[in-house]
Amino acid sequence: MIERVDVRYIKTPKQAGLENPVMIEGLPGIGHVGKLVADHLVKVLEVEKVVELYSHHFPPQVMVDEKGIVKLPKNEIYAYRAEGQSPDLLILVGDYQSISNEGHFELANAYIKIAKDFEVSRIYTLGGYGVGKLIEEPYVIGAVNDETLFEELKRHGVKFENGEPAGGIIGAAGLIIGLAMLEGIPSACLMGTTSGYMVDPKSAKAVLDVLIKLLNLEISVEDLEERAKEMERLISQIKEMQEAQMVQFKGDEDLRYFR
Amino acid sequence: MIERVDVRYIKTPKQAGLENPVMIEGLPGIGHVGKLVADHLVKVLEVEKVVELYSHHFPPQVMVDEKGIVKLPKNEIYAYRAEGQSPDLLILVGDYQSISNEGHFELANAYIKIAKDFEVSRIYTLGGYGVGKLIEEPYVIGAVNDETLFEELKRHGVKFENGEPAGGIIGAAGLIIGLAMLEGIPSACLMGTTSGYMVDPKSAKAVLDVLIKLLNLEISVEDLEERAKEMERLISQIKEMQEAQMVQFKGDEDLRYFR
Amino acid sequence: MIERVDVRYIKTPKQAGLENPVMIEGLPGIGHVGKLVADHLVKVLEVEKVVELYSHHFPPQVMVDEKGIVKLPKNEIYAYRAEGQSPDLLILVGDYQSISNEGHFELANAYIKIAKDFEVSRIYTLGGYGVGKLIEEPYVIGAVNDETLFEELKRHGVKFENGEPAGGIIGAAGLIIGLAMLEGIPSACLMGTTSGYMVDPKSAKAVLDVLIKLLNLEISVEDLEERAKEMERLISQIKEMQEAQMVQFKGDEDLRYFR
Amino acid sequence: MIERVDVRYIKTPKQAGLENPVMIEGLPGIGHVGKLVADHLVKVLEVEKVVELYSHHFPPQVMVDEKGIVKLPKNEIYAYRAEGQSPDLLILVGDYQSISNEGHFELANAYIKIAKDFEVSRIYTLGGYGVGKLIEEPYVIGAVNDETLFEELKRHGVKFENGEPAGGIIGAAGLIIGLAMLEGIPSACLMGTTSGYMVDPKSAKAVLDVLIKLLNLEISVEDLEERAKEMERLISQIKEMQEAQMVQFKGDEDLRYFR
Repeated sequence: MIERVDVRYIKTPKQAGLENPVMIEGLPGIGHVGKLVADHLVKVLEVEKVVELYSHHFPPQVMVDEKGIVKLPKNEIYAYRAEGQSPDLLILVGDYQSISNEGHFELANAYIKIAKDFEVSRIYTLGGYGVGKLIEEPYVIGAVNDETLFEELKRHGVKFENGEPAGGIIGAAGLIIGLAMLEGIPSACLMGTTSGYMVDPKSAKAVLDVLIKLLNLEISVEDLEERAKEMERLISQIKEMQEAQMVQFKGDEDLRYFR
Repeated sequence: MIERVDVRYIKTPKQAGLENPVMIEGLPGIGHVGKLVADHLVKVLEVEKVVELYSHHFPPQVMVDEKGIVKLPKNEIYAYRAEGQSPDLLILVGDYQSISNEGHFELANAYIKIAKDFEVSRIYTLGGYGVGKLIEEPYVIGAVNDETLFEELKRHGVKFENGEPAGGIIGAAGLIIGLAMLEGIPSACLMGTTSGYMVDPKSAKAVLDVLIKLLNLEISVEDLEERAKEMERLISQIKEMQEAQMVQFKGDEDLRYFR
Repeated sequence: MIERVDVRYIKTPKQAGLENPVMIEGLPGIGHVGKLVADHLVKVLEVEKVVELYSHHFPPQVMVDEKGIVKLPKNEIYAYRAEGQSPDLLILVGDYQSISNEGHFELANAYIKIAKDFEVSRIYTLGGYGVGKLIEEPYVIGAVNDETLFEELKRHGVKFENGEPAGGIIGAAGLIIGLAMLEGIPSACLMGTTSGYMVDPKSAKAVLDVLIKLLNLEISVEDLEERAKEMERLISQIKEMQEAQMVQFKGDEDLRYFR
Repeated sequence: MIERVDVRYIKTPKQAGLENPVMIEGLPGIGHVGKLVADHLVKVLEVEKVVELYSHHFPPQVMVDEKGIVKLPKNEIYAYRAEGQSPDLLILVGDYQSISNEGHFELANAYIKIAKDFEVSRIYTLGGYGVGKLIEEPYVIGAVNDETLFEELKRHGVKFENGEPAGGIIGAAGLIIGLAMLEGIPSACLMGTTSGYMVDPKSAKAVLDVLIKLLNLEISVEDLEERAKEMERLISQIKEMQEAQMVQFKGDEDLRYFR
């Protein structure tokens, strides 16, 4: 049986032994930008799962893996004990956000409770910022819950653009830093600009680059870079096709004068 | 973490030191009439914030201000200690109403609980009354939860029109005075007539004028008057365009006879 | 403040002094048949209000009466102490049913709780049975929660038609007798056949006639009869118009042969 | 009155006297495949009802049987005490699944609670796997919550097809084995391939055949076989009609050359 919001500690904060970790959230969202970054971190860092979270607010179904084994919708939190100059990390990943409005608040409450249990020093939520057109050079815009973060973020390339995103930040990435503000945890949302039309590893790469600098991480970015390059090729092809059509269209236009 | 309906007192009723204040509600709604009036009062009066209210019934997101700082959806209540002939005030403002049906009741319950904690003597909820066409001379129609209020309201220009609004009063403005009736707090809803198609400072000005008289307020109305005049100019322009089209249209009609 | 389902006794069962009353439910529904009948009973019998019921499951609004006084959505229960041969009655009326699925169950639970508090001996829920076409001679079909009721109902003109209504009985009229079955209270739903397209006093009259016989009531039916006759006139007019159109149409058809 | 999820034991697990039964779930779903199989088992085996389950998550209505007696939506669990080589069974049947997302989780929790109370050794949930076209030879694909089940299932003809169903398994059939995984109860979902367009006894027959082998059941399959044959005839007719149309269509095509 699972409760409405069912948090299961695999390691207690004490067992996990992290020292005021930085929490990273990367759940599905616009262009899956946040998810791509957080999943990459879990893959390349030596992490340990510390929390599993089930909820009635996820879709009422199971997924089936390639072997035929079912998987209940769940989110997971991984702990990374830093060795170098970087802080310890607590990385929140998963395949779902809440499918109800109220559920978003209940889940965000749970994430913040976990953040407090682990005495996190800061939270970065990751996401995409959909601009409605293909982006050749994605960059990262930010939103913070504490003025003191502006300088550091700007120094590492995060842009702040006059109230953007104008529609607000919807779901976990927004609510987590909103609730963190009430708890006094300085936090920021880092959003890679993206078309919003497709999964965007190139935008994710831009966010990862900023995050690496912010956290002094020494990690491989190869995997994401590879996918970003593939995407670049794909976009070039789309553009070429669009231009070809444009020429064709202009040709047709010109011909009209002769009809 | 925030609860389903999370009322946070910044000042207790005792600390606020109000004497049987009048509560004013002005949340978003038709033409944003109520919100414009209540926001204006908070701006021109010397007020003090006494309550912040968060809720799972607001949209699951944060807004971003022009600097890049996030803001959780919340409502706020401000206290005004009167100096002249007017009563003390408790002004409820905010950017959201509940996005679920049940949430409307839970939030209205919370507002009434606060009203009782502050021992309010009366409640005025403010709103717009959409009539579906442009209004040149907006006026104020009322609905009360207690017969004894009729005379005073009529004397100050409030109209009562045979069961209008026929569709009832939806959301906080209606539920608050409905619940206040059960608690024996005499209350009225004051609605400025408005097209319902756009934010309407002119209708808000009409409501403010009534409220000033009802409460013996001595305040500047300049700001709202300015916006109302701008709107008047805008409406004149729209009307001129409509008339021009009409003439054009009639011209076209006439010509038909000659085709 | 009101609770999710907020039952307020104006008279306790003891104060009301009813003896194993029969409960009648007539809330809004198909053709407003049930509501018309129950409202008529409350009007012509000497009744006393014993319960008011508010709920978060009603629409989040207030209605405004012709004078300008607001009214919270609520249901009411009236007690009738019989003088003649009829049993005591407990009559459930109101302007709303639940607007959510779960709310229907919570409200039906509350009605059954009240029925048990008053030690009702039987429940009749009233409604319309929409057949999708104009009905000249409406009659009453029934559904019961207890086999022992069949004979008495049939004797008084109630028809049972092979599993009709095929789509089940939705909302309070259905759930109340369903839940009553679990509590061992013999109950029936009486449904007047109706087009389903409009408020139908003629169908209501048919249900009232059956109810009067079932309960040995001696009451005026004038008011409802009047409205039923008005409706009959209205339907005649509609039929005449339809026939006129049909003739016209046939005329047009005939002419086609000559084109 | 009924609770949100209202489980009523008619026999306690002790009274039922089953020995580590296998639980079978067959509620309505794609092609009603699961329901057809489970209803068949309840019909042909000598079973005893042990649990009735009511819920606010079912549709807010009652159904009416052919005699005119109402029936509240409910699910039922039947116990079968095996005599031969087969294990004892606990069979979950009913006419409804939850109509809300959260309700699916609450009901699945209840089913798992019952499974634990009866100390079930395994759970098979039954369903259809919609493939979007007519299937002449339906077969059974599986999904498990425990690797150890693969071999036995494959040996009895269950197929595992590279992550199918790709969209996951929605509702009770999926959630029950998902939650069972958390409780350590080895479980599988058996899905008969079906068009997804109609109730499919032929697919149900395929699932029943597998289940009979898995459980060493000695039961009649006549009833379902009969219905499967009827369906086969129906499908032949549809195919013939389609082919006739195709020939007609080709004929029309040919004629085009002559126009």
